Amino acid sequence: MEQIELVTPKTLQVTKPLTMVSGSILPKYELVFETYGKLNDDGSNAILICHALSGNHHAAGIYESENTKGWWHEHIGSGKSIDTNIFFVVCSNNLGGCHGSTGPASINPSTGKIYGSDFPIVTCKDWVASQNTLREHLQIDCWAGIVGGSMGGMQVLQWSIDYPDKIKNAIVIAAAAKLSAQNIAFNEVARRAIMEDADFHDGRFLEYNTIPKKGLALARMLGHLTYLSDDMMGEKFGRELRTEKLNYNYEVEFQVESYLRYQGEKFATKLNFDANTYLLMTKALDYFDPAAEFNNDLETTLAKTTANFLVISFTTDWRFSPERSQEIVKALLDNNANVSYAEITSQHGHDAFLLKNDHYEAVFSSYMNRISTQLQTGRK
Amino acid sequence: MEQIELVTPKTLQVTKPLTMVSGSILPKYELVFETYGKLNDDGSNAILICHALSGNHHAAGIYESENTKGWWHEHIGSGKSIDTNIFFVVCSNNLGGCHGSTGPASINPSTGKIYGSDFPIVTCKDWVASQNTLREHLQIDCWAGIVGGSMGGMQVLQWSIDYPDKIKNAIVIAAAAKLSAQNIAFNEVARRAIMEDADFHDGRFLEYNTIPKKGLALARMLGHLTYLSDDMMGEKFGRELRTEKLNYNYEVEFQVESYLRYQGEKFATKLNFDANTYLLMTKALDYFDPAAEFNNDLETTLAKTTANFLVISFTTDWRFSPERSQEIVKALLDNNANVSYAEITSQHGHDAFLLKNDHYEAVFSSYMNRISTQLQTGRK
Repeated sequence: MEQIELVTPKTLQVTKPLTMVSGSILPKYELVFETYGKLNDDGSNAILICHALSGNHHAAGIYESENTKGWWHEHIGSGKSIDTNIFFVVCSNNLGGCHGSTGPASINPSTGKIYGSDFPIVTCKDWVASQNTLREHLQIDCWAGIVGGSMGGMQVLQWSIDYPDKIKNAIVIAAAAKLSAQNIAFNEVARRAIMEDADFHDGRFLEYNTIPKKGLALARMLGHLTYLSDDMMGEKFGRELRTEKLNYNYEVEFQVESYLRYQGEKFATKLNFDANTYLLMTKALDYFDPAAEFNNDLETTLAKTTANFLVISFTTDWRFSPERSQEIVKALLDNNANVSYAEITSQHGHDAFLLKNDHYEAVFSSYMNRISTQLQTGRK
Repeated sequence: MEQIELVTPKTLQVTKPLTMVSGSILPKYELVFETYGKLNDDGSNAILICHALSGNHHAAGIYESENTKGWWHEHIGSGKSIDTNIFFVVCSNNLGGCHGSTGPASINPSTGKIYGSDFPIVTCKDWVASQNTLREHLQIDCWAGIVGGSMGGMQVLQWSIDYPDKIKNAIVIAAAAKLSAQNIAFNEVARRAIMEDADFHDGRFLEYNTIPKKGLALARMLGHLTYLSDDMMGEKFGRELRTEKLNYNYEVEFQVESYLRYQGEKFATKLNFDANTYLLMTKALDYFDPAAEFNNDLETTLAKTTANFLVISFTTDWRFSPERSQEIVKALLDNNANVSYAEITSQHGHDAFLLKNDHYEAVFSSYMNRISTQLQTGRK
């Protein structure tokens, strides 16, 4: 039987104020995080995992109290791509999140009330700055690698730009250097769904003892739908009916409707995802555009980056298509960076980055083995 | 200056009950329609236009009272692809619509109240049956052609299956023989947005003197977004800001957000589209699957079809991609039908079927010329 590490989340209290990209100042904050494996003596084997929109710090292992495996359990653990026998793995819940780190559901020290919509807009750069504080706390001089998919991949890119000497290897999966107009448009529809829910109360819903459940479920349905490929949905659901024959009414007729409603409701109620966090994360995605500071030139943006890169995309991912990854690869190659690129054949759309896939695992593992060899030989 | 025909909508009162696919019976109904050009002596030059989800009977010409050109004005008129000097063109508002034909906002004769959500589910087959009654009323023995894009193209297909001897030419544009799971999923998200709006009142909103404006706007934003291509949105909006610099709040930041909100609001308020009609139309789309009656075999489904076909698709249409049109073409070819197929290069996604495009116009016009020649020679 597979050995799964028992884990307990830890919390870092940061009392040094954080001046955010927006100009807002967060006087203090907490970051909840988990670690897997052991930091070696010279602190050279640390891997940071950056999570995606709906993710959190529970990337791997299992809690004693409940049977929930981490969201990237497939890739992190003993003998897996990110082998916890070799690496010390760290994952924190992003600032503004809703799983323990300071966010919109936390108390605003300046008012004594829940932040709600007063929580300042967080950007990818702010996340990376806060993760850098966590790095210092953990006494890690330099990450052996930083890994992330989707929004996580954007944080990896930002790390390589903002702290080039603190990251040896950057693994950017199913990401993009910035959102397209279509990406932003999907996010905007999701936000409208939340903000126009009668229970949203301008983001102060917790003070009203309610949550904008319907809007959040709708946002999630839409998000989920765009993370899947047309082909995969066709194969999984086709036009299969929920009941034996058509009912000709507005109830659920097709399996795909039932599936999406379930996903939406689970997210909004069972998983209890905070609606303000959802808004915040989609905004951070929209704002992510590191090249904007460099005259919109991605090559210049990545000029100071010294990390080795592994960039991975998935054939049927239409939210962050292979072309978007290739833009990153091109900018890196134009800088003579050391970059490997793999386009993985998968039917699973954007979601593929979270799922098992032999080719994906082979590429990922062999790159992680290379990092492991670097550790042993001390070479880059 | 271009000559635009002045038009006035007419109404057909149908008193013969319509037994619908759902089993419901509509005791009587009205169809509002427009005609352009003149029916020739032997009634052989009639072209039926079938409209798409948000369309109506005002396909061409202009009203005396207001300056609104018909939605397919680009293609119908004197000297245009569908030349009103040659053809007698008919377009009706679909049953269940909200522009004059009997629909959810009409009075239910059995209760004396607005139908609202009691209006029975209409299918593509029902539309075609009601359009056939209009054909009889207009004393047209056989349509020289039936033309439609998107949902309109589905009606054309249904005509060719249900009334093979009443249609000489079928022009199916940007359509599919059935919706995919992804298509249904997008429709379902749009419906949830409407039905969960606090002003929806289980579809009885008109009795409450309100409309589910927010939900309908949201549904339209999502629809509109999926009718455009990623490339085209990128070119039109990119990441352009609405204001000079980023505001880091939840207001509109990017032009694309502003554009979509405007489209949604216009649809829900200025155009006053009925939310129940929107639900009904999306349901009719979901249910459309003529092959279901023929053991899911499209070749058998189209076996009795005797019309000539022109099938058109657009390269960047990802709602109804060229592959979906090719499925129709293949089934027709397997039946040795006379079919022409054109895949038009366009950046405009699904919306391309409504827009000007030289290649599209050339293909369309030359096919219509062929029909005109058929009329003159009496040959098929």
